Amino acid sequence: MADNDIRIDAELLETFTKNIFTQVGMPPEDAAMEAKVLVWANLRGVDSHGVLRLPAYLDNIESGTMNPNPNIRILKESAAVLYMDADRALGPIATVQAMDRVIDKARETGIGWCLIRNITHQGAMAYYAQMAAQQDMVGIAVVCSPPNMAPFGARAAGVHNSPIAIAVPADRHNPLSLDMATSVAAGGKLTLAADKRVPLGPDWALDAEGNPTTDPLAARILCPSGGPKGSGLALMFQCLTSQMANNPLIVPALRKETEDNQESRKARHNQNSFVAALDISFFTEIDTYKSQIDDLIDELKALPRADGFDDILMPGEPEFNTLEERSENGIPLPPGTVEKLRESAERTQVALPEGL
Amino acid sequence: MADNDIRIDAELLETFTKNIFTQVGMPPEDAAMEAKVLVWANLRGVDSHGVLRLPAYLDNIESGTMNPNPNIRILKESAAVLYMDADRALGPIATVQAMDRVIDKARETGIGWCLIRNITHQGAMAYYAQMAAQQDMVGIAVVCSPPNMAPFGARAAGVHNSPIAIAVPADRHNPLSLDMATSVAAGGKLTLAADKRVPLGPDWALDAEGNPTTDPLAARILCPSGGPKGSGLALMFQCLTSQMANNPLIVPALRKETEDNQESRKARHNQNSFVAALDISFFTEIDTYKSQIDDLIDELKALPRADGFDDILMPGEPEFNTLEERSENGIPLPPGTVEKLRESAERTQVALPEGL
Repeated sequence: MADNDIRIDAELLETFTKNIFTQVGMPPEDAAMEAKVLVWANLRGVDSHGVLRLPAYLDNIESGTMNPNPNIRILKESAAVLYMDADRALGPIATVQAMDRVIDKARETGIGWCLIRNITHQGAMAYYAQMAAQQDMVGIAVVCSPPNMAPFGARAAGVHNSPIAIAVPADRHNPLSLDMATSVAAGGKLTLAADKRVPLGPDWALDAEGNPTTDPLAARILCPSGGPKGSGLALMFQCLTSQMANNPLIVPALRKETEDNQESRKARHNQNSFVAALDISFFTEIDTYKSQIDDLIDELKALPRADGFDDILMPGEPEFNTLEERSENGIPLPPGTVEKLRESAERTQVALPEGL
Repeated sequence: MADNDIRIDAELLETFTKNIFTQVGMPPEDAAMEAKVLVWANLRGVDSHGVLRLPAYLDNIESGTMNPNPNIRILKESAAVLYMDADRALGPIATVQAMDRVIDKARETGIGWCLIRNITHQGAMAYYAQMAAQQDMVGIAVVCSPPNMAPFGARAAGVHNSPIAIAVPADRHNPLSLDMATSVAAGGKLTLAADKRVPLGPDWALDAEGNPTTDPLAARILCPSGGPKGSGLALMFQCLTSQMANNPLIVPALRKETEDNQESRKARHNQNSFVAALDISFFTEIDTYKSQIDDLIDELKALPRADGFDDILMPGEPEFNTLEERSENGIPLPPGTVEKLRESAERTQVALPEGL
C-alpha cells in the first residue's frame, strides 16, 4: 500500500456501495450482490475490478447501457444446459444466478453449462468459478467483450483479451483458482502503470498506429499472451459465447471502425459469457479428490525454485494472501479511487463511510 | 520440404501403417483408425504427431504399455456426461468413440462431455475437435500426461504442457481449429531443432539443472507460455482430467523422482483426457452461425498487418494450407522418419510401400 492510501473496513465499503446501487434504482438484494462482488475483488487485491468502477457503472446505468431492473430470462434449457438473456443486467446479478443454476444441473447430470447473452461488466470472473469450488465442483467462467487486443500478426484490435477463470476445491489448502486474461498484461495493469507513470513491459501494448509502445499513456491495443496462443484462445472464446449467442461483438465493431472512432465502441458496452460447473463426485470420491489436490499443491510448492523466486505460487494464491491481510487491516484505497467514491456519493446523495 | 525428403502418397502411407498395426494384433478397424489419425497429422504438417511415432508405439505395445485389444468401458453415464476407462487403448481408438458419443449427447442435451482415464498417446488433438465441427458443433479436447514443464517459478518439471484443441465450423472457410500446447514451444519443435541442430528460442526450455538453455540437445524441461498463464492452465487441466479420474500423474512422478531418474517417468506412459461437444443449433440457427464465422474470418484477415507479417492466419489455417499441398503432392518424409518406417516394416514383417 502506498503512503497516501486510506484504509477502509470491507464491511463499511460494501454497505456504502450497496447504498449507491439501491439509490439508483436497483432492488436491495441486487444492490447487495453487486456490492459484494466488487468488494470481493478489492479484498483480494484485484482493485481493477473493485469499487473504482463505480462512476463508470453509474454512467452506464444513467445512459441505459446497464439495466438496474433487468428481466433476466431463460431462453432454452435442457438437463445440462441453460441459455440466458441477461437483459443488460449488471454482471453479477445474472451471473450468480446462472452459476447457482448450473451447479444444480451439475448435481443432477454431472455438468451444467450456461450461455449468457447481453450481459454487462461481470467483475472478477474468479468469483463465479469459486462459487462452484465451494460446492465441491469445478467451476469455469469465460467472458468476451468488443475488440481491445491485436490478433497475432495484426497491428489493430480484432479480438478481446477475454479472461478465463477455473477453480477447483482443495481441503487443507485454499482452492486452486486461475483467473487469467488472454493478453500479456490485463487492462488493469496498464491503467495502474498510467496512474503510476511507470513504463509498460515491452510486449504489452501497441499505440494507436499499431506500433509497440511502453508508454502507458500512448497504449491503445493489448498484445496477446504467447502470440498465436492467446490470440487463438480469445478468438475461440468469442466463438463459444458471442457467436453462439448470435450477438457478435467483433465484426460490428470492426465495420463501425471504418466510420467512427474507437470511443464509440467502448461506449456500446456489451458482453457475452458462459459459466459451467462439473460435479467432482460424479466421477470420483470428493474427499479423495480434495486431499489429492492438497498433495499436488504441496509437491509443486516444494519444487526447486527458479532464480529470483522466493516461492512457487499456486493459481489464486496471491489473492488469498491479500484477502488475509486486507480482512484484518482493511482495504487500502489510493487517492484516485477515494476521489471516485466521493464523486459517486455526491452524485447519488449517499453518505460516505466514516474516514473517507 | 528438404532436398533429401521422400514424397509418399497419403493413401499408401495409411495402408502401410494400418498393416503394421494389424500385424501386431490390433483388430483391422482399430488399426485403420489409428493409421488414419497418424496420417491425418502428417497431411497437415503436424509431423511430430504422425508416423514417426511408429517405433515408439510398437515398443509400447510390446511392453504392454499400449493395449492393442483394450476393453473400453463406460464407468458412468448421464444425459450429458460419460466417464470412460480406455484400458490403455491407443489414443484414437477410445477417443474417436468418446467424441462420437459426446456428439450424440450434445444433439440431445446441448452438451456432451467425456472424461477418459487410462488412455495412451492421443495423437493430434485437433482431430477430435474437428470431428465435432464437421457435425456443426463446437468441439473441445484436452489431454494431460506426466510432468515435462516447469511450473512458473520452478526450475524443475512439475506440470505437463497439456494441449487444448477447440474447433468450430465455418461455411465458405475452413473451420477455425485451435490446437495449442501450454508451453512456449511444443515438444515436437524441440525435437525438430535437435534434428536440425539449430538453437532453441531463448525462453523455450531448461536444462537438467533447471537453467535456461538454447541447446536443443541439453533441453530437458519445457517452459510455460505466458509464465503463470500457461503454467496455470496446465495445472487446471490436470485437475479436470487426471485428478478427476483419480489417476494423478504429477504427484507420483515427483515423488518417484527422488529415487529414480527422469527416464523412468517417460517409460510409464499414461494419459487422461476429456473431450466435449456443444450443439450450436441448441442456441442459434446453424447457418447464421457459420456465415457469421465466415464474416469474422474475413474481417480479421483484412486487419492491417504487423511488421514482418504477410498474412493474418486463423487458428488451423497453416495446417489446412499444408493439407491442400500434401494431398496433391504427397507427404514429404525426412530421412530419419523413412529410417523409422523401414525399421518398423522389418520388425513386423510388413511390406514397405513402393518408393520407400
